[in-house]
Amino acid sequence: MVYDESWYSGRSVLITGGLGFIGSSLAIRMVALGAKVTLLDAMLKECGGNWKNIEPIREQVRIFQDDMRNFQALSLVVKEQDAIFHLAGQVSHGNSMREPLTDLGLNCVSTMNLVEACRIHNPKARIVFTSTRQVYGVPQKLPVKENHPVLPIDVNGINKLAAEYYHLLYHRTYNLKSTVLRLTNTYGPRLQIQNDRQGFIGVFLKQCLSGREIDIFGDGMQVRDFNYVDDVVQALVLSLLHDQCFGHIFNLGSRDRYTLLHFAQTLATLTDVTYKLIPFPVDKKLIDIGNYYGDYSAFSDITGWQPQMDLHEGLAKTLAYFQAHRINYLTA
Amino acid sequence: MVYDESWYSGRSVLITGGLGFIGSSLAIRMVALGAKVTLLDAMLKECGGNWKNIEPIREQVRIFQDDMRNFQALSLVVKEQDAIFHLAGQVSHGNSMREPLTDLGLNCVSTMNLVEACRIHNPKARIVFTSTRQVYGVPQKLPVKENHPVLPIDVNGINKLAAEYYHLLYHRTYNLKSTVLRLTNTYGPRLQIQNDRQGFIGVFLKQCLSGREIDIFGDGMQVRDFNYVDDVVQALVLSLLHDQCFGHIFNLGSRDRYTLLHFAQTLATLTDVTYKLIPFPVDKKLIDIGNYYGDYSAFSDITGWQPQMDLHEGLAKTLAYFQAHRINYLTA
Repeated sequence: MVYDESWYSGRSVLITGGLGFIGSSLAIRMVALGAKVTLLDAMLKECGGNWKNIEPIREQVRIFQDDMRNFQALSLVVKEQDAIFHLAGQVSHGNSMREPLTDLGLNCVSTMNLVEACRIHNPKARIVFTSTRQVYGVPQKLPVKENHPVLPIDVNGINKLAAEYYHLLYHRTYNLKSTVLRLTNTYGPRLQIQNDRQGFIGVFLKQCLSGREIDIFGDGMQVRDFNYVDDVVQALVLSLLHDQCFGHIFNLGSRDRYTLLHFAQTLATLTDVTYKLIPFPVDKKLIDIGNYYGDYSAFSDITGWQPQMDLHEGLAKTLAYFQAHRINYLTA
Repeated sequence: MVYDESWYSGRSVLITGGLGFIGSSLAIRMVALGAKVTLLDAMLKECGGNWKNIEPIREQVRIFQDDMRNFQALSLVVKEQDAIFHLAGQVSHGNSMREPLTDLGLNCVSTMNLVEACRIHNPKARIVFTSTRQVYGVPQKLPVKENHPVLPIDVNGINKLAAEYYHLLYHRTYNLKSTVLRLTNTYGPRLQIQNDRQGFIGVFLKQCLSGREIDIFGDGMQVRDFNYVDDVVQALVLSLLHDQCFGHIFNLGSRDRYTLLHFAQTLATLTDVTYKLIPFPVDKKLIDIGNYYGDYSAFSDITGWQPQMDLHEGLAKTLAYFQAHRINYLTA
């Protein structure tokens, strides 16, 4: 079956990690689509949740501040949801290496709890899980397709991969309607930029917004694909409307790819800051994957999804948002 | 570097799951090689630990009854060990589906704790982890090589796979001397046969020893490779003597492969019991992988390992052991 976006109107929708960057952006979209929206977020330190993210819809959503590692609490929340967007988790590669057991809890235990809770209490819910391109490790061939071998090079990649497998297994074994999207570098309004634990985009933005130089590790020639958050939200919206997606893994990605240097130069142009190349820190080099861009044609073929936003315009919008809401994202 | 077996003489050796089937068999061998042996076992219900397994060496080993999910306890035990055989874990496919979170704790958390404890307290230890052919899921091509795609079809396979990745990651990132062996069907003296949760071999043996008919699910035409426990012990011994193994995954396997029907017929012949075919239970069919046998040439090429035991002789030895020690393995 294929549905259109009106399917969401009047439906009960749960977003885990709903106060985070992508979760809150999705929540705003879901409210616009007429869904009855519940947000679940543990608001853990450094995981990206921010009450300011949902200011525009604060009165139109129900919020549970609960930790998904608590099975009982989660069981209550998943009941009677028509759609579940599972975005909660630890996403910092560095933190996953510093605190691997915490990462294991936030990614593996939380996800196992979710699929178990759905199996027991809500087996008909439509579920999508946001995984990461990090599961591939160092690409052997570009663009990376979904059947590329997986060899994660950090704890986060391993735990996200296990979480993917739980979703696929519960689809295969118990018919859960579960889909996995592997996200690449996502940017846009509401990105967590306060701490530097969630990737270079947040770090670059913070440096720009603070009027400092942008620090690029190495020569900045690593190629990446970048998705503006609205394009990722659209992918999430579409993923649950196509029954063909269930039980499968799909890459997101972008038509144009850029070097980190180009990305930094675009930011610099938009903000009048400068940038400089600095040596790659050893701990970061160990978990760097070199060039990456993904092939998203499998997902496009089923859902028609095409990323729309041009990098220059997307970064301009992002900067405009943060300049207008600086106080909510950059505290002293 | 390559060492010979005399390397173990006088060395401190830790065996996790040391009171289990393979762990205790390895412990007996290690004592014979002159190692200073420490066994760690939580003695959890249905995980295979049995005090009777180590009767021949009870006074020659040090034993800690601790749970590897407890990081502090584990940290104390790993210190100053030269070699660590990580065999502890949940191995029942069925139990992993019934209690997925327990499986996650016993396989993922325990293993994460081990590599973390080694990184912090004993980064020079030689480590081997016993994984399972179950990580491959349903074979696409036989014999299965180590680069066969992995798609576990039960929770146990997923968690063992994550545990493998932790070992490889800690090798890559922190130079831990870690090797992964993917075991196939192992049989022999000390196999857990009291409950029917650890595979068909234990079930068949229990049926034989109780003088009951052997029940074969389906037509019994699934092909498997079988390793006698002494051959697996020898593989473990060799794995730590070859530096080339560290950071890699290796299959075990056998030269000859047999159907489950042949396996049951051999047992029946040796014990004068009969067998019958019965329909495949639905829950077991869902996690059945069809035919499987592995290519173990990569491990042989490095270590010279060759499984020695013929199935008929191996089963005869196994039955003789259980007939002599029935009271320790089959309680009412």
